[in-house]
Amino acid sequence: MARIVMKFGGTSVADLERIRNAAARVMRAVEAGDEVAVVVSAMAGATNQLVDWCHELSPLYDAREYDAVVATGEQVTVGLFAIALQTLGVEARSWTGWQIPVSTDGQHGKARIMAIDGAELIRRMQAGQVPVIAGFQGLGPDKRITTLGRGGSDTSAVAVAAAIRADRCDIYTDVDGIYTTDPRLVSKARKLSHITYEEMLELASVGAKVLQTRSVELAMKERVRVQVLSSFTDTPGTLVVDEDEIVEQEIVAGIAYSRDEAKLTVRRVPDRPGVAAAVFGPLAENGINVDMIVQNVSEDGTTDMTFTLNKTELPRARAVLEAMRGEIGYADLAADSDVAKISVVGVGMRSHAGVAGTMFKALAGRGINIQVISTSEIKVSVLIAAEYTELAVRALHTAYGLDVA
Amino acid sequence: MARIVMKFGGTSVADLERIRNAAARVMRAVEAGDEVAVVVSAMAGATNQLVDWCHELSPLYDAREYDAVVATGEQVTVGLFAIALQTLGVEARSWTGWQIPVSTDGQHGKARIMAIDGAELIRRMQAGQVPVIAGFQGLGPDKRITTLGRGGSDTSAVAVAAAIRADRCDIYTDVDGIYTTDPRLVSKARKLSHITYEEMLELASVGAKVLQTRSVELAMKERVRVQVLSSFTDTPGTLVVDEDEIVEQEIVAGIAYSRDEAKLTVRRVPDRPGVAAAVFGPLAENGINVDMIVQNVSEDGTTDMTFTLNKTELPRARAVLEAMRGEIGYADLAADSDVAKISVVGVGMRSHAGVAGTMFKALAGRGINIQVISTSEIKVSVLIAAEYTELAVRALHTAYGLDVA
Repeated sequence: MARIVMKFGGTSVADLERIRNAAARVMRAVEAGDEVAVVVSAMAGATNQLVDWCHELSPLYDAREYDAVVATGEQVTVGLFAIALQTLGVEARSWTGWQIPVSTDGQHGKARIMAIDGAELIRRMQAGQVPVIAGFQGLGPDKRITTLGRGGSDTSAVAVAAAIRADRCDIYTDVDGIYTTDPRLVSKARKLSHITYEEMLELASVGAKVLQTRSVELAMKERVRVQVLSSFTDTPGTLVVDEDEIVEQEIVAGIAYSRDEAKLTVRRVPDRPGVAAAVFGPLAENGINVDMIVQNVSEDGTTDMTFTLNKTELPRARAVLEAMRGEIGYADLAADSDVAKISVVGVGMRSHAGVAGTMFKALAGRGINIQVISTSEIKVSVLIAAEYTELAVRALHTAYGLDVA
Repeated sequence: MARIVMKFGGTSVADLERIRNAAARVMRAVEAGDEVAVVVSAMAGATNQLVDWCHELSPLYDAREYDAVVATGEQVTVGLFAIALQTLGVEARSWTGWQIPVSTDGQHGKARIMAIDGAELIRRMQAGQVPVIAGFQGLGPDKRITTLGRGGSDTSAVAVAAAIRADRCDIYTDVDGIYTTDPRLVSKARKLSHITYEEMLELASVGAKVLQTRSVELAMKERVRVQVLSSFTDTPGTLVVDEDEIVEQEIVAGIAYSRDEAKLTVRRVPDRPGVAAAVFGPLAENGINVDMIVQNVSEDGTTDMTFTLNKTELPRARAVLEAMRGEIGYADLAADSDVAKISVVGVGMRSHAGVAGTMFKALAGRGINIQVISTSEIKVSVLIAAEYTELAVRALHTAYGLDVA
């Protein structure tokens, strides 16, 4: 017997038929002797409709009212899901965020969960009742409904799992697990049976959109074992767990790519102390996130600073830097949106040398030029011309021995 | 300056454009110096969709879950309405039933309001904020969401008006007031400027579906002045008020009709004490509401008992009585669904004789046979063949001097 959280995303509860199927899955777990708490998203499409209405009324809508409107999506699902469970003979009741309560901070529209008292939920689960909990929502200090921001239901599920000390948090979604790379790109991509929190975080932040980053951070902090699996098949998914749980750790867990970035080069900046601050300070003040940064070796007292940022931020970043031109004293700006970031991720890198070398060699072997390199403890990322994306990912997938046999 | 509740029904908030229009109406009232609280229904159609989903999942759904699902309709409207008001520069915030709270009893799906603490609402209104309150919902003793049953938003509005001691409760709907009779039937129908609670109750219960009966009962009990008016025009509506407020009371306020009833005659029942209980006891036990009842004069120790009931209940009533045939000892049952009930309503009847006589004479003059008669202090109802409905209503409308000049 285990205590598990089963979380169903929007596509898994998109209509009554899918809600019935998801409920049947819960029933089987209950019949197998598990204690189950369910966390659900809004029916696919429902949230978009509600968000659109708010936007249409006012682009500058009151986030507190937005929360009241948008949180109804999950409230509908929990009620319907509880009815579906009851129809299958499973004792169940719905819980909104304010009923538990899921206490959050006061940042309406992007609240953070502060506390969930799991005692009542545990008591009911032990008495045989399945709590069906609205994801994505909570109660703010102002006693008004808050939402956690898009994708927040994964975070809700992990937080509930921590609060009820669940053995596992199963995230049902429309993919059946975490792959070594995007299966749409690489036919030889392999589903991982395990992945560490750290690797999942790196993969999530570089483009693998299966789990919301915040939910993985929370899982890592609270040591919640998370399983990503499909609500449409019965195959086991991928377990996201602590490094200690993985006996035979591979050096590289996966290859991720992102085409969402652009490269901006500030050319011929005076090479003197404080110039990096002069460039990146104004960008930060304007809320523009910068990712990879490289600075060339100085020549005749000037240097080039290159960095990447989200493509959508490029016009704003240019405007900010152009306004600062006199102050920074650079020659000109060069932008390139036609780039892709390819990342190799794996906790095994900590103890194995040569991971980056394998990468550079594999790319060179295909004639792919590396524009920018950045590394972290468990990740090596390179920026290349976008047209080589598929070629690079496939080459690396083979080079690290990740291809299915 | 007045303190008013403005209640908008589903058709008045059916889409964003109508929400904007309704909000503009509130803005004009605020600008004129009124303190306004808004009560809203779900957007037209929303509730039906939610109810359908519950029914589809299970005809025997858990009413507590039904409430959680269905109450979201009004929650969406209050958030959107508050945003619409803010966009017009009117300070506003939304309130769900549980936030105020609107305390109800525990009858999920058809709860009754027990208490509303208006202090916080009044404080905010005096500070210039417009509360936008979800109608139709409350919080049960189990701390779960309750709904008041279909049409309950009118009742919410009147209850809020009582709680905040409002000068008036304006119910915006798709008709522009209460008419002397159905204007679709009688082109000379006249809009009433005033009507008493008692008359409104009698008219509501005999087929004029403008206001929900419970809301009128509550308004009468709490002495809340109610105005029924259209959200699509700017003409004044009809005030539903205490009798004392109406200076020149007409004898007859209106003529109502209903084609929803059927007539059932139990023929040749033994005319002995307790026989009425033997007939109507089993019907009541089976939840079948009986309306008009007449008993013929006894002949040779037997009598005929005739009563009316809702057409949809006719098959069940027949089945109940047929099962009791041996016990009651009647000859046979005769049913007639082809009937209409015509009612003349007016508090003036209390002090004026001859109202019933005028009715019988007018009907006789058109050759219309009266099948059953029933009277109350302020109402005379007759059952006639359905084919004469229009003729009868028009004749009575003229006979009581109600036609527009």
